[in-house]
Amino acid sequence: MSSAFDLTGIFPPIPTPFESDGRLALGRLRENLQRWDSQPLRGYVVGGSNGEFPLLTLEERVMMVRAARQAASRHRLILAGSGMESTQATIELTRRMAEAGAAAVLVVTPGYYRGRMTASALVQHYSQVAEASAVPVVLYNVPANTGVDLPVEAAVELSQHANIAGMKESGGDVTKIGRILSGCAPGFQVLAGSGGFFLGALSVGASGCIAALANIAAAPLAALVERFHSGDRDGARQLQQSLIEANAAVTSLYGVPGLKSALDLLGFYGGPVRSPLQPLPEGDRARLAEILRRAGILSRPPSSELA
Amino acid sequence: MSSAFDLTGIFPPIPTPFESDGRLALGRLRENLQRWDSQPLRGYVVGGSNGEFPLLTLEERVMMVRAARQAASRHRLILAGSGMESTQATIELTRRMAEAGAAAVLVVTPGYYRGRMTASALVQHYSQVAEASAVPVVLYNVPANTGVDLPVEAAVELSQHANIAGMKESGGDVTKIGRILSGCAPGFQVLAGSGGFFLGALSVGASGCIAALANIAAAPLAALVERFHSGDRDGARQLQQSLIEANAAVTSLYGVPGLKSALDLLGFYGGPVRSPLQPLPEGDRARLAEILRRAGILSRPPSSELA
Amino acid sequence: MSSAFDLTGIFPPIPTPFESDGRLALGRLRENLQRWDSQPLRGYVVGGSNGEFPLLTLEERVMMVRAARQAASRHRLILAGSGMESTQATIELTRRMAEAGAAAVLVVTPGYYRGRMTASALVQHYSQVAEASAVPVVLYNVPANTGVDLPVEAAVELSQHANIAGMKESGGDVTKIGRILSGCAPGFQVLAGSGGFFLGALSVGASGCIAALANIAAAPLAALVERFHSGDRDGARQLQQSLIEANAAVTSLYGVPGLKSALDLLGFYGGPVRSPLQPLPEGDRARLAEILRRAGILSRPPSSELA
Amino acid sequence: MSSAFDLTGIFPPIPTPFESDGRLALGRLRENLQRWDSQPLRGYVVGGSNGEFPLLTLEERVMMVRAARQAASRHRLILAGSGMESTQATIELTRRMAEAGAAAVLVVTPGYYRGRMTASALVQHYSQVAEASAVPVVLYNVPANTGVDLPVEAAVELSQHANIAGMKESGGDVTKIGRILSGCAPGFQVLAGSGGFFLGALSVGASGCIAALANIAAAPLAALVERFHSGDRDGARQLQQSLIEANAAVTSLYGVPGLKSALDLLGFYGGPVRSPLQPLPEGDRARLAEILRRAGILSRPPSSELA
Repeated sequence: MSSAFDLTGIFPPIPTPFESDGRLALGRLRENLQRWDSQPLRGYVVGGSNGEFPLLTLEERVMMVRAARQAASRHRLILAGSGMESTQATIELTRRMAEAGAAAVLVVTPGYYRGRMTASALVQHYSQVAEASAVPVVLYNVPANTGVDLPVEAAVELSQHANIAGMKESGGDVTKIGRILSGCAPGFQVLAGSGGFFLGALSVGASGCIAALANIAAAPLAALVERFHSGDRDGARQLQQSLIEANAAVTSLYGVPGLKSALDLLGFYGGPVRSPLQPLPEGDRARLAEILRRAGILSRPPSSELA
Repeated sequence: MSSAFDLTGIFPPIPTPFESDGRLALGRLRENLQRWDSQPLRGYVVGGSNGEFPLLTLEERVMMVRAARQAASRHRLILAGSGMESTQATIELTRRMAEAGAAAVLVVTPGYYRGRMTASALVQHYSQVAEASAVPVVLYNVPANTGVDLPVEAAVELSQHANIAGMKESGGDVTKIGRILSGCAPGFQVLAGSGGFFLGALSVGASGCIAALANIAAAPLAALVERFHSGDRDGARQLQQSLIEANAAVTSLYGVPGLKSALDLLGFYGGPVRSPLQPLPEGDRARLAEILRRAGILSRPPSSELA
Repeated sequence: MSSAFDLTGIFPPIPTPFESDGRLALGRLRENLQRWDSQPLRGYVVGGSNGEFPLLTLEERVMMVRAARQAASRHRLILAGSGMESTQATIELTRRMAEAGAAAVLVVTPGYYRGRMTASALVQHYSQVAEASAVPVVLYNVPANTGVDLPVEAAVELSQHANIAGMKESGGDVTKIGRILSGCAPGFQVLAGSGGFFLGALSVGASGCIAALANIAAAPLAALVERFHSGDRDGARQLQQSLIEANAAVTSLYGVPGLKSALDLLGFYGGPVRSPLQPLPEGDRARLAEILRRAGILSRPPSSELA
Repeated sequence: MSSAFDLTGIFPPIPTPFESDGRLALGRLRENLQRWDSQPLRGYVVGGSNGEFPLLTLEERVMMVRAARQAASRHRLILAGSGMESTQATIELTRRMAEAGAAAVLVVTPGYYRGRMTASALVQHYSQVAEASAVPVVLYNVPANTGVDLPVEAAVELSQHANIAGMKESGGDVTKIGRILSGCAPGFQVLAGSGGFFLGALSVGASGCIAALANIAAAPLAALVERFHSGDRDGARQLQQSLIEANAAVTSLYGVPGLKSALDLLGFYGGPVRSPLQPLPEGDRARLAEILRRAGILSRPPSSELA
């Protein structure tokens, strides 16, 4: 049996706000969370790929989780990214994340030694982390960043562990999600790792999503889930299609700089990214705004010159 | 406006039957078709990847289409694979396929010069073929075989052509299918290229599938469509999950040799493959049988020792 | 023991000249060969990747070999591309190529069913072709076009066959070339498949090259070999470096359209490519000319405005 | 003009020795260095990929450099791996490495946000690091670990920076090395990142190598350089070929666990790896020993039953 920890719902992987001098902008974080708290979200992923975790110090990663836990509604789950390349370091950071208030940890596959990250090595890594962790563990597979694709059989085997609650799958392959859900232990949950294939993932049994898009489009994503569950197939499909371009804009097309720019456009605090990420060029920023307007996420200005 | 040609439904890409000496076994083809004709299929793809088209002569490719057209129920559509590396050769073979009775042609992306197959080159290729063809053209994208991934923007542009009816997308990326369907001309249809992501593809608007699995599991695939349309989400999901392993067995795991072995196991004629494809080793054949039994596609023997 | 057939030297994979209406321009072929015959080349590859073989009919492929054999100096070897996806079809075309005058055949790895092209399948394919062929066989590995990378162990095993003379390796991995040459049967020869890594390949024991660049820079390539063998390391290195940009221009950068344009610029007949290959845009043609001038391959015009 | 810092020679990227309880084994490091100090090496890379740097804490990375600097002969250069995902963190660690005694730093390309690591982003990253660093910077390109391939044009542009001395190129593409060396600023040096293509790299102008193999085969690698420079082409080629299998064994085949096992076999201290790396299975250890014997790196036991 897998963990009884319930992951159903929509989670934005929130960006880490920086001051213009590069320090954490925790006041901005609180303001953003206050606004997200009123949206139909289940909780927040703190310190994920969209949180620029590889560009943070360990101290900053923990501070972000503590601050988010303090600022967010107590009804919201905090999932903390605690993955490191080393198993032991992951265990240690997981411990600190639990102390900082994380309800669960999201553990990205190690990737630097990808040539040696066999199914067996990954099973051992995650088993040790899950064994040591005081909170449930969520596997995090994101081949586009790590170069590692957690094999179906490894996910299925790990689903048997009582302290592994589920998996964020960002690869976009719904065949794989279906294979995992058809083989895993009861209760193991898969979350779509992007808004682009959310409906496809729901149709094969995903429990929700952790999607950059949820930072800026919680309501449409929640409506998509609602339509899916109420049997409104056409409505769900139309909503999914209407979101695909905006989803690409804050992921594959413009990345974290795009997501932060989108937040700025919508009145959240996005702010600067850390180098080697580069700020979004002005032209791309205008294109992004237009994409968000077409998707109905950003209102058209009363007398828009773009219109 | 795109073509009014309706592609809705399930199409098996039928294998090409060979005698043990390597010649076409057209009698076997007729027997197979007679049986498929009683199953809930919309038509047949003749000379697709599962038809070993690259291992046939041009003459054989045309003969197969002519023989299939003559043998199959007149209510079944014949889609003929007419792709060649050269545009001119594709046009010529398309002409012959139409004369042989094909209702439409399925044109695989050229792949040998993949480094030069830009969106623009592919648009020109397909536009010329569609212009010259007497029957509707279906784009065929299968990166695992060709090394080329037809870009979304090329598919969207080509969807405007009156003689391009739709697309078979075998890449398994439902985000891409959603992007194409959200941008294409009205009436343009996308068919899932494999049974593994069929439900995911339906959920974002696919019209059906061209799937190796349809050769051996037409009824469950038709039931999946039925459940999807009737709003039986759980039933559809369970059916999809129950088919995933069998689908992999006749595609990525064992390939065309696996598909032909599966047909043999089910009382169709599968027969030998052409070299350099190799026959399925005995051990894999036993594993395949067990997979088909688990999926309920192959009956368990009355006194099965495996049971 | 491997074949005693000697492959030492430089071979251009000659393009197939087309008239503006698309027919073979065999008169142009003869003129080109007459000029190449006076250059320091060992022979010609006819019907290779640069010969647009996938865009030719079988008849045209054979005609090109016959015409080249008749037109070229009898001291020049003709290597004919006879690879097909099917083993049987490769055997048949190999037979026709030998009859048309080919001294040896160059057999590209089948690639469409790449997922099944295991070392064992490739060994069986090539062994059957070599067994049946009246002339020596040269293996042809070009992953960028086929998606298949002939494994070291397959090359080593095939090197034992008395009728397999060597291999054209286009992947650019000199570690692999070294591994093959350290394991293969005595007499088995490896030819570099591009001019970009020619010196590196020579240093680990390659016998020569089959390189698009040899169509337009036979003399510098021959000088490179001469300097290498005479121990002029610095001279060889400088020559290699001076050719790298031009080599890229007629391969990865501009492809066959670039090679044909380069021939046109140098007074050979390049002529049009076949669709879906596209002609080189005007701007690229100017950049190509400048690259050839920088490499000393194309003379600067007396009063060049570019200078 | 590029830095005058001379990188000529052979550098082993030394493994980080751990006690059985996982702590740094600095005593073992000293013993290993004492032995390496008597071998024909130019210096040591500390905290490279073979040093398991992603599995060390920042503190451990610095301690290793300090300890190596203290233990090694003062005539040996210490190159310290100081790459981090963040530019600012790389600058900070570079500063600490210089203080710890590093003569230069080896800075791996950031890889997690590979989709955004354009040539321009990488140029900015490295320029900032080089600007801030008190010691020369060596670029480190290793696509197999990072998923990023530093583009030729970025390397060429960065070669102009006075504080960027050269580059370790591990991709194995000698065409790329040739292109960089033909375009870079005078004095910019390229080191082969593996022993498998060392001779190929020397032939196009590489100054030396940073190769796992140098940990266990310094003398043959030095002999290879000697033969190359003395014009003994055949001898150099034979030596290169004789080392290729052993090189693969301590890199692509068995990785860091293989390298540490090889050190153990040779009387150095290899010791355990850190999880998620897994110890070399017993069978692989026996195969590794046999490979090292065949290469003449490990002596055959007096009454070997394997012989």
